[in-house]
Amino acid sequence: MRLTLLGTGDAGGMPLFGCHCPRCATARTDPALRRRSASALLSVADRHYLIDAGLTDIEERFGDSDLHAILLTHFHVDHVQGLFHIRWGRGDGIPVYCPNDTNGCADLFKHPGVLQFNRLHKYESFYLDDLKITPLPLIHSRPTLGYVFEHERQRIAYLVDTRGLPPKVEDFLASEPLDLLVIDTSFPPGVDNTNHNNLDDTLALQQRIGASRTVMTHIGHDLDTWLSDDNNHLPDTLLAGHDGGIVFP
Amino acid sequence: MRLTLLGTGDAGGMPLFGCHCPRCATARTDPALRRRSASALLSVADRHYLIDAGLTDIEERFGDSDLHAILLTHFHVDHVQGLFHIRWGRGDGIPVYCPNDTNGCADLFKHPGVLQFNRLHKYESFYLDDLKITPLPLIHSRPTLGYVFEHERQRIAYLVDTRGLPPKVEDFLASEPLDLLVIDTSFPPGVDNTNHNNLDDTLALQQRIGASRTVMTHIGHDLDTWLSDDNNHLPDTLLAGHDGGIVFP
Repeated sequence: MRLTLLGTGDAGGMPLFGCHCPRCATARTDPALRRRSASALLSVADRHYLIDAGLTDIEERFGDSDLHAILLTHFHVDHVQGLFHIRWGRGDGIPVYCPNDTNGCADLFKHPGVLQFNRLHKYESFYLDDLKITPLPLIHSRPTLGYVFEHERQRIAYLVDTRGLPPKVEDFLASEPLDLLVIDTSFPPGVDNTNHNNLDDTLALQQRIGASRTVMTHIGHDLDTWLSDDNNHLPDTLLAGHDGGIVFP
Repeated sequence: MRLTLLGTGDAGGMPLFGCHCPRCATARTDPALRRRSASALLSVADRHYLIDAGLTDIEERFGDSDLHAILLTHFHVDHVQGLFHIRWGRGDGIPVYCPNDTNGCADLFKHPGVLQFNRLHKYESFYLDDLKITPLPLIHSRPTLGYVFEHERQRIAYLVDTRGLPPKVEDFLASEPLDLLVIDTSFPPGVDNTNHNNLDDTLALQQRIGASRTVMTHIGHDLDTWLSDDNNHLPDTLLAGHDGGIVFP
C-alpha cells in the first residue's frame, strides 16, 4: 500500500482568494506551499484508488486508464467537484463508493454519466481487489465516512471531514495496531468548530488511538499560518501533510 | 474592450476522461488542444470582468486584486464551479451578476462567502464602470442570460448556453452593427439537441444576425473532432475559439 496526499487544503485552499497575508503571498509564487482540496491516492501494486474527488484535474492526472475506483468521504462540493467533468467521459464507467446520502451534490445523481455510484454502510467491510476497506462513521454536517485500509498486515486510516470521532470508531481504530492515521485538522489550537478538528482535538485523538504516525490534512489557512511559525512545534509522531506528499509507507 | 476566451469546452472538456480517440490522445500531450469549461475575460483598460466561472483556478489566475466582477450566464455546474473555492476568500467581496434562478447551484446561495450575488433581468441594461451590459434571455434548460457589451462604439455579444435564440433577441442583436458574436456551438452539423447549437444552427444564426465575425465556443468533443478533419471547412467569418485566444479586438 502506498498513500499519496494529492491535496491537503480545506474548501478555501491555500493561498486564499483575495488574501494579502505574507503566507498567501509566498504560496502564490511557490507551488510547494499550495494546498488544494483534501484528497489522496491509495495504490496497491498497479491499482489506483482515489479518495475524494475535489481536485478538478482528474482527467489530466488519470486520463486514460490509471484510475480504478473512487471513494468519497461525503458530498460537500470540495470533496466531489472533480466528478462534474469526468462524468461526461467515455468508457466502461468508473465505480464510485460513497456514503448513503440521498442528496448527493447538485445534479450528480441525476446525471451520473460514467460514474457508477455504490452506497456504503458503516462498518460493512468490502474488498477492492485484495485491499480490505472498512467505512467508519464520522462526525460532520453531512453523512460522512472515514476509511480503514488493510493490506498485507498493514493498516491505515483516512478520516476526513470530522470533529472528533464516535467512541465506537475510536475503539475500532485502537483495537489493532494502526500504522498511519490521516485526519482532518482544519484549525489551529483553541478554535472551536462543530465540523472539523483543531490541533488540540487531533493531539488528543492521536493519543487515545495510538497510531504509529499521524498526518494532518484538510489544513485551513489559519492552521497553515500557525504551522509556518517557527515558534510552534509538533510532536515527532505528528506531521502536517503537504500536497503530493507520500505518507505511506 | 478586449475579450479573451479562457475556456472553450463543454462540460466534459477536451480531452474527454477515458476517451482513447486520436484527438484526445493528442490533446493529452498538447495543452494547446485542451478545452476547459467555456468562460471568458472581458477587459476594459485595467478593469477585468470574468464571464462564467467554470474554471477552477480563478485564485491562481486572479489571486490578488485583478478581478473586478463576475458575470454568470447560468447556474449549471460547468459555469459556476470555480466559485466554490473563492467564496471562502478574504477581502471586501466580489460582485457576481447572474440570472434570476432561485436554485443557484449546490449550496452557493446558502454559503455565498465573499460572493455578492446581484440578480439581473432580461433587457435591463446596466453599467460596470463605463462598460454597458445588456442581459438577453437564451434558450436553455435553466434560466440563462447572454450578454451584449458596448463600449466606445464597439458592440460584442457573448451567448452561452443556448439552442437558437428568441426572435426578439435576434432582432435586438441585428438592430445595430455587431462587431463580434461569440456563441455556443457544441455539436457538429446535424446533431439535434434541445440545449445547445450545432454548427448548422450557428451558421444560420450568423447569417440572420449579420455579425462581422462569429466565434464558436462551448465546443464539444465531437465538434472538436469534426473541426480537426482537414476535409471540413468553415466560412471566413466563422472561427472556432480556442482556450486563451484573444478574439476581440
